[in-house]
Amino acid sequence: MAEKTLLASRKFIKPSFSYLIEKKRDGGEFNEDEVRFIVDSILDREMPEFQMAALAMAIYFQNMSAQETACFAEEMMLSGEVIDLSKITKPKIAKYSTGGVGDKTSLVLTPLAAACGVVMPAMNGVDENFVISTLDKLSAIPKFRSDIELKEFVKLLNNVNCAIVQQHPEIAPVDGILYELRQNTATIQSLPLITGSILSKKLAEGAEGLVVDVKWGNGSFVKDLEQAKQLARSITRVGRSMKRRCVALVTDMNQPLGDTVGTALELREAIELLKGEGPEDLKELVLKLGMEIVRLAGVAGSTLSAKQTVQKHLKDGSALEKFKEMVAAQGGDTSVIDDPDKFPTAKYIRKLPAPKRGYVHTINAGMIARGVQILAANSKKGGKLDPAVGVSEIKKVGTQVKQGEPLMMIHYNDEARLESALEYLRSAYRLAPKRPNPPELVVERVA
Amino acid sequence: MAEKTLLASRKFIKPSFSYLIEKKRDGGEFNEDEVRFIVDSILDREMPEFQMAALAMAIYFQNMSAQETACFAEEMMLSGEVIDLSKITKPKIAKYSTGGVGDKTSLVLTPLAAACGVVMPAMNGVDENFVISTLDKLSAIPKFRSDIELKEFVKLLNNVNCAIVQQHPEIAPVDGILYELRQNTATIQSLPLITGSILSKKLAEGAEGLVVDVKWGNGSFVKDLEQAKQLARSITRVGRSMKRRCVALVTDMNQPLGDTVGTALELREAIELLKGEGPEDLKELVLKLGMEIVRLAGVAGSTLSAKQTVQKHLKDGSALEKFKEMVAAQGGDTSVIDDPDKFPTAKYIRKLPAPKRGYVHTINAGMIARGVQILAANSKKGGKLDPAVGVSEIKKVGTQVKQGEPLMMIHYNDEARLESALEYLRSAYRLAPKRPNPPELVVERVA
Repeated sequence: MAEKTLLASRKFIKPSFSYLIEKKRDGGEFNEDEVRFIVDSILDREMPEFQMAALAMAIYFQNMSAQETACFAEEMMLSGEVIDLSKITKPKIAKYSTGGVGDKTSLVLTPLAAACGVVMPAMNGVDENFVISTLDKLSAIPKFRSDIELKEFVKLLNNVNCAIVQQHPEIAPVDGILYELRQNTATIQSLPLITGSILSKKLAEGAEGLVVDVKWGNGSFVKDLEQAKQLARSITRVGRSMKRRCVALVTDMNQPLGDTVGTALELREAIELLKGEGPEDLKELVLKLGMEIVRLAGVAGSTLSAKQTVQKHLKDGSALEKFKEMVAAQGGDTSVIDDPDKFPTAKYIRKLPAPKRGYVHTINAGMIARGVQILAANSKKGGKLDPAVGVSEIKKVGTQVKQGEPLMMIHYNDEARLESALEYLRSAYRLAPKRPNPPELVVERVA
Repeated sequence: MAEKTLLASRKFIKPSFSYLIEKKRDGGEFNEDEVRFIVDSILDREMPEFQMAALAMAIYFQNMSAQETACFAEEMMLSGEVIDLSKITKPKIAKYSTGGVGDKTSLVLTPLAAACGVVMPAMNGVDENFVISTLDKLSAIPKFRSDIELKEFVKLLNNVNCAIVQQHPEIAPVDGILYELRQNTATIQSLPLITGSILSKKLAEGAEGLVVDVKWGNGSFVKDLEQAKQLARSITRVGRSMKRRCVALVTDMNQPLGDTVGTALELREAIELLKGEGPEDLKELVLKLGMEIVRLAGVAGSTLSAKQTVQKHLKDGSALEKFKEMVAAQGGDTSVIDDPDKFPTAKYIRKLPAPKRGYVHTINAGMIARGVQILAANSKKGGKLDPAVGVSEIKKVGTQVKQGEPLMMIHYNDEARLESALEYLRSAYRLAPKRPNPPELVVERVA
């Protein structure tokens, strides 16, 4: 393979960027040499941004084959550091979520996996504007450090078996360059580009396999179920081409996940989950994703044993213990985990009253996120979000409410802009006289 | 109309460039305000090149409606100077050719139209790499100036009724910016972008109507007949939306036009045509395009009178006289027109012998252009093409030849690279035992 690549490289005559754009525009498939040349040219800043943009848009329309995308992900991975975890004998699995409102599963699954004997590296970017990132939530823990060098990251994985850190600029740097460009050229939503982005980063972090949670719905950046299914298939198919184990679940994101949205509120909910408690939808999702992780890792052989493994480590407190160990290893003050009331709390709490009796028919999770964003941005802490504010006790789809009964509790510090937030929170709810069908949490499993 | 536009402008909130790219990516149609905003942002260099490139590629895939393209052409026209020829009472018509190997009709039609009483402004760019431009050919006339300011251009049109000059940077400057970008992003071939480019420039030159020669075939940049027809329809449809008279002829460019390819050789052939002489195909094309011009201008009412008008001005020498008048007004030495033997001639002339007997079945005009390019670049005149070299007496498709009989005469100054040129010239020809069907010169007329 290495020799074949070498021979191919020898004969490769660099094409012009225009030629490559034209080839993709006309539906052509890039060969290995061409993909390598493109990725190298982006890394070296030899391809001008305007040609990268034209190429990205041509890819948006013409797509890439699984083979082509695999090659692209591989080359993007090789464009920077690739973390070598071969000295750790335990299985190494990464988890990736496309992101959603109220999604705190990564906070739970990372230590849970480690407790189950699976090494889980977790680098996090801040991809989505309207979602509070995992790192935002962790920053509510005093002294917690996420800005960590690669060497220390490896050390943490060795010692604790998990770590949640900031995306490192040396990991898949070409993805970083391309991602920024894609954000401003309406090319984020390209299936092969998303697939290449996820796989290149997660595999460069040292993972052998990948469990992906592809969310669809009004609280996700994938609004359409069919698109979410296509993305799940694309990731697993390309993962296979790269000879990596990949499983994807397509899950519902048409209402907030769990009962809370807000930095500290979500962190507290995650701690409950680590104790085996918390809201049903989150418990189910943590269990399903956790089972995929331990099965993919080979820690459990059957569905039943996977379920037992995950449940055992939640019940016996070892997942929570691992979380504390991880927080401590990253410099954080673990006393807040033992006593969650130490987390910052808001000055005021008020209910959002139901305007009439009925059943919660739909919730626009995106609007709730926007409402919380307004509450959090209103603090006097400069650019930083106020960690204390948010919403809790969210009445989920299918719940019956009386007129005036709370649809949620609003935690806020600043009355001045509450009205503006209330507008979003109010209009997020649709009540109806009849009970709607409950949404299906896990819509599809793709392996 | 003006008030409506003003009202609309008042309410217009500037969208982000990303939003506009996304809108087009998803097949949306830009409204007037959006088109104006895009064109203004390109002119002011506020839209970064990478977003221009993504937008151009999105337009390539999703196209623009006739209304949208008309608005785009209009705004591009208004992005710079719009020449006001309203003080000239005669009709003002422009002629545009998409360009082809051996095409010297613009040299003939511009003074011919003026002789017929039609004012013809003609600014020329150097769009195509493999074609010798009209200005290249005119530069074989000693002292001829084409770098002319707008005021002088208007004066020339007033006094002579025609002028052939370089594209002025103040004419549709946004088209200039976009064109350069399109060349490097594989977005040249977008129908609405080509249409907008042509109309914006020609109308800014002061033309009231436009006759377009859309060439298709191996000697043109449009290789496909269907594409050429679409382009012809696009230009005329959008021209109508702009309330301008437009006619397009789709013409064959699957062999060189006329009997010569080469700077001075083509200029000499053009002079012959101005005397009503020259090869049949060129005579026919000049007649057909000339008839369209005089009819569009309203100088002739019927097909018959149009034909008589054009033929009269070729026969009575007034077209040639007008050509000399134009050359003189632009500083050129007209003595070469009276005595074409004064044009630079090549040191050597040799034949390209037919390798066997038969009929000329096909000619790849692009290969002939490439061969001539090699001959011309071989001179020791720095970057300038050698005006003396080229090919003449080209045997056209359908001609019977004996073995060894010349397929063309090659004029060259440098023996060193003749072999390389010969390779292209030889392989341009396919001979066959049976006479092929003669190609149809004018395939379609679109009005």
